[in-house]
Amino acid sequence: MTDSHDLMSKIVSLCKRRGFIFQSSEIYGGLKSSYDYGPLGVELKRNIAQEWWRSMVYEREDVVGLDASILMHPDVWKTSGHLANFSDPLVDCLNCQERFRADKAPKREPGSDTEYHTGGKARGQLKRAVVGSCGYVCPHCQSPELSEEREFRCMFRTTMGPVDPLGEFTEEVWGKDLSKDDFRKKLAQYAEKSAAYLRPETAQAMFVQFLNVQQTMSAKVPFGIAQQGKSFRNEIVVEHFIFRSCEFEQMEMEFFCEPGTQKEWLDYWKHERLKWHQRYSRNPEKYRLRKHDADELAHYSDECYDIEYEYPWGWDELEGVASRTDYDLKKHAEATGVKLSYFDPNKTDPQSGKKGWRFIPYVIEPAAGLTRTLLCYLLDAYTEEKSTDAHGNEKVRMVLKLHPRLAPYKAAILPLVRKDGQPEKAMEIVRQFRAAGIPVSYDEQQSIGKRYARHDEIGTPYCLTVDSESLTDQHVTIRDRDTTEQQRIPVAQALDIVRKRLSLAGGQEGTEG
Amino acid sequence: MTDSHDLMSKIVSLCKRRGFIFQSSEIYGGLKSSYDYGPLGVELKRNIAQEWWRSMVYEREDVVGLDASILMHPDVWKTSGHLANFSDPLVDCLNCQERFRADKAPKREPGSDTEYHTGGKARGQLKRAVVGSCGYVCPHCQSPELSEEREFRCMFRTTMGPVDPLGEFTEEVWGKDLSKDDFRKKLAQYAEKSAAYLRPETAQAMFVQFLNVQQTMSAKVPFGIAQQGKSFRNEIVVEHFIFRSCEFEQMEMEFFCEPGTQKEWLDYWKHERLKWHQRYSRNPEKYRLRKHDADELAHYSDECYDIEYEYPWGWDELEGVASRTDYDLKKHAEATGVKLSYFDPNKTDPQSGKKGWRFIPYVIEPAAGLTRTLLCYLLDAYTEEKSTDAHGNEKVRMVLKLHPRLAPYKAAILPLVRKDGQPEKAMEIVRQFRAAGIPVSYDEQQSIGKRYARHDEIGTPYCLTVDSESLTDQHVTIRDRDTTEQQRIPVAQALDIVRKRLSLAGGQEGTEG
Repeated sequence: MTDSHDLMSKIVSLCKRRGFIFQSSEIYGGLKSSYDYGPLGVELKRNIAQEWWRSMVYEREDVVGLDASILMHPDVWKTSGHLANFSDPLVDCLNCQERFRADKAPKREPGSDTEYHTGGKARGQLKRAVVGSCGYVCPHCQSPELSEEREFRCMFRTTMGPVDPLGEFTEEVWGKDLSKDDFRKKLAQYAEKSAAYLRPETAQAMFVQFLNVQQTMSAKVPFGIAQQGKSFRNEIVVEHFIFRSCEFEQMEMEFFCEPGTQKEWLDYWKHERLKWHQRYSRNPEKYRLRKHDADELAHYSDECYDIEYEYPWGWDELEGVASRTDYDLKKHAEATGVKLSYFDPNKTDPQSGKKGWRFIPYVIEPAAGLTRTLLCYLLDAYTEEKSTDAHGNEKVRMVLKLHPRLAPYKAAILPLVRKDGQPEKAMEIVRQFRAAGIPVSYDEQQSIGKRYARHDEIGTPYCLTVDSESLTDQHVTIRDRDTTEQQRIPVAQALDIVRKRLSLAGGQEGTEG
Repeated sequence: MTDSHDLMSKIVSLCKRRGFIFQSSEIYGGLKSSYDYGPLGVELKRNIAQEWWRSMVYEREDVVGLDASILMHPDVWKTSGHLANFSDPLVDCLNCQERFRADKAPKREPGSDTEYHTGGKARGQLKRAVVGSCGYVCPHCQSPELSEEREFRCMFRTTMGPVDPLGEFTEEVWGKDLSKDDFRKKLAQYAEKSAAYLRPETAQAMFVQFLNVQQTMSAKVPFGIAQQGKSFRNEIVVEHFIFRSCEFEQMEMEFFCEPGTQKEWLDYWKHERLKWHQRYSRNPEKYRLRKHDADELAHYSDECYDIEYEYPWGWDELEGVASRTDYDLKKHAEATGVKLSYFDPNKTDPQSGKKGWRFIPYVIEPAAGLTRTLLCYLLDAYTEEKSTDAHGNEKVRMVLKLHPRLAPYKAAILPLVRKDGQPEKAMEIVRQFRAAGIPVSYDEQQSIGKRYARHDEIGTPYCLTVDSESLTDQHVTIRDRDTTEQQRIPVAQALDIVRKRLSLAGGQEGTEG
């Protein structure tokens, strides 16, 4: 269909050209790996988010929502381990000054020789030198002359409240004769003062608010708490457009269940989530489950699956479905002294053998990236259809075959010509759809063929065309994006027909917007 | 109805008790003025946001959406003036160590006397002293012994990318004999390195992406760009629950129009927005427009209105509707060299008198707070109805009379008793509603009276009760939250009836969820 090497650049170009995704602050030269969702991108993103919320919260008895703040108490990140462990080892090349991740640098046998150009980027003499005990060289110039590794924290830190910790630092250390080490420690200490962090995941809020949610909703285990929202990671390596960026959006759910039932719930959720992704996809075979090897598992997890997608660069992560045991609730309970447990009066305590069991729930976490899901659906939907016209010329029809429930516009309403009352008739139909909360596009620019092509390219599932006969016979032509088949339907039924087709596409009766 | 002094504390308590709003990180002692929206709060917030988006984007021809990143290029904030001007003057009291805003401190005539206790919080001797030339005293202890004013920046700063600016600062200054002033300057300079800021408003992204949006959508002036999202301000004074907090959510729209038409568009939008707020309110008289005095206007604005609400503490801001002239586009164009203008081929250039006019659009900005709007609707909906029962005892019915389109649950489905097939029948109805994407609550705990009361308190507009006859006559009882009137309706029509009532409440045909 389309060469997978080109596919990413075609998607990036389409996104920019048609208002799906722009680089953030583009007129200022952009900001590293930050993206803005344009008029069509924001609708696609909202639709995906809404489908997730609908399937997770509205259609279920056992999951409720949460929308927690991005800035949380800093001790949350101490307890979760993010402050201590969520970091990358960074190294400076003393030759070319590049800063890089030690764990991603090219490995070399300590004591072996390496060749590199002195003078860094200026590329001076070729020099031979011995690889140090670290066992790697600079990925840019191959030099073994490197700084020591320093831990670089992946959380974004900021300062909250009226305190200026750096001002206070100046007051304390200026004029004092401190050792370099003490100076560094004092500075770090002041920088931590009043520190707050942008959350690197939404999950912790569900643990921290477990008791509030359970009690106010009288929720019975098993139940889940679902949340959508932004998270932030100061990634050194950003890649593949919106696949890995510093600011991203998550759709996470923590499902609290009885100890001993986690295996069956993990099994349930990994299949549910796989099916959810496939439901809106044209190529379900591009999704798979991959079990984590023992050495891949995070310290809090006893079993974990990735839902992987076959991106143009190969199979890679889309969503993680992890069995997190009772690790998080236990840790937060220890740190705060608050009992984060659940009492089931009908269950028998396995220890005492008596009726009534207080336990710390086990947790299954399906954690998806919203922005990553959006990328998958763009890749999934992109098609080029080649055909030959009457004159033997090859034509390419570019169609974004987005699932109708995800498409930014559900229909385009097009007057064939810009006169004879056709625009007015078309606008009547537009108003009907808008009043029903269904996003449609009115488009009267250029030829009808060009307009069809434009709407194929942005994934509009239906085009409704008003022509000269429409004013007398009260019918319009409905054109299907994927088949290009056209059909004449009564104006009075247009809204119902589109609604019905959208509902069928969703596999159930439904609402849009 | 209810004493306005109590109202806020009743709302705060209801929010916590029934899962609308919790303090962020509560088990860790909370984080200053940060809030999490619980299972009911997140639905209320989503519904308000969806109603705004619907009226701003889906129902209009001339407004499109945007969803920009929270971290933007730091130069955006230089251009907008936020880096230079968006700050508060802070002062330390040398007696009691309190830090406060100079512009909010009690004013005293310079040279006059003031009395205060020495020893700060320990309250030592009473002392008389002379007020300095600053003309104010400490708001906490009345002391005139104060530090100098320092500008405190209200934007949250963080660091992006692999650079550790404080490490580099240490390398440069340690061991050097710098003056205190040079030391301070160097530290500030390094702290600015790789700095990124959490946006203090969503508006700037619409200016920075003006051209991308206009061109990709072939948008014709006048048109608007709408955005919802989080913004952050490091407020020294946080107050009134979610009214003023450091992390909050905005719903902003920038409407680009032809120079000379801004007055009529300002007029249009201020009324549109006022009507929007009133549409979901029981007390439209609690909303008003207030024109800014000349000395209140921001430097970029030539006219501005506040939509004010009568909160328990008095009239205060809910939304600003500002005429921002061409200030923002002009400034960003100057800073980047990118022409942020619009060419209208059909208009006559007023300068040259020729057809075809290139101009910098003027901007009208309706900027609402989503979290503030949510607070208003809670205040608006809260009622207590007193009545006397047969025994002469006074009873209070607490009802949250939320507009049905905003209510977290649209209906509660209740089996009268937990046996005889009633729960199963009720669950059949629940499944119908859920499949239609309508959020409902199934509730079988405690007496039917207590369940009605529970749903009155959280604003569920309709209760559908399944009783012993339901299984034979296929009817249920629908109870209206506000009138408490009950009516027998066929099960088969329940979904349609509730849908119809919800649509009527919205003033138009509509969709939920």
